[in-house]
Amino acid sequence: MVEKVAPQRQPVEEGPGVCPVFHAGIELIGRRWNGVILQSLRGRPPRFNQLREQIPRITDAMLSLRLRELEDAGVVERTVTMTRPVEVRYQLTAVGERLAPVLDAVAAWSQDWARQAPRSTEESA
Amino acid sequence: MVEKVAPQRQPVEEGPGVCPVFHAGIELIGRRWNGVILQSLRGRPPRFNQLREQIPRITDAMLSLRLRELEDAGVVERTVTMTRPVEVRYQLTAVGERLAPVLDAVAAWSQDWARQAPRSTEESA
Repeated sequence: MVEKVAPQRQPVEEGPGVCPVFHAGIELIGRRWNGVILQSLRGRPPRFNQLREQIPRITDAMLSLRLRELEDAGVVERTVTMTRPVEVRYQLTAVGERLAPVLDAVAAWSQDWARQAPRSTEESA
Repeated sequence: MVEKVAPQRQPVEEGPGVCPVFHAGIELIGRRWNGVILQSLRGRPPRFNQLREQIPRITDAMLSLRLRELEDAGVVERTVTMTRPVEVRYQLTAVGERLAPVLDAVAAWSQDWARQAPRSTEESA
């Protein structure tokens, strides 16, 4: 299942209780695979293959799609160094780098959440 | 498109670079609609209809599904008051309440992100 619509910064019209910017932002970073891609882009900018090795269950097609969406969203950029062979790396943009405290807060909360006794996972299994 | 698999706290096997707990956590809170549902549950516990009015583009079926998934994940609980008529409300659990700083960090970053000049949204349109 590949969703083709890239996340846009243009907010969608929403109801009174929902901030459209928050809605777009949380679904960008929480979209399937995006959180682990963004987390893997912290530190030295990886090449495509290095990134894929960090996230083994992802397919090449899905990783390419997600990277392109994150580029379109202005969070990731692709740098091409004109050496032989050409070197392509992916890195966070300035606003992408500013995701660091968000990702750290999610990581801390996730550990907290994982420590809670599962409630109905057995029932639903 | 309705995904039937509820988010589980049991981490999936992952590669060396990815924390499975982080992966499960970020995709729980960032899954389509979940961020705005969680945000709408802060404050006084709403009834189903009040929640739906906060998020007008969501269908009843999708809101029910997401609430059940969030219950299964231990983040939301449903309280039933035995009045006439029966009153059903949804509220965050203790670990769900501890999402507050995460949601605040996402909201702040999203505003920052929205202020950046769009880069390739025109190109991809």
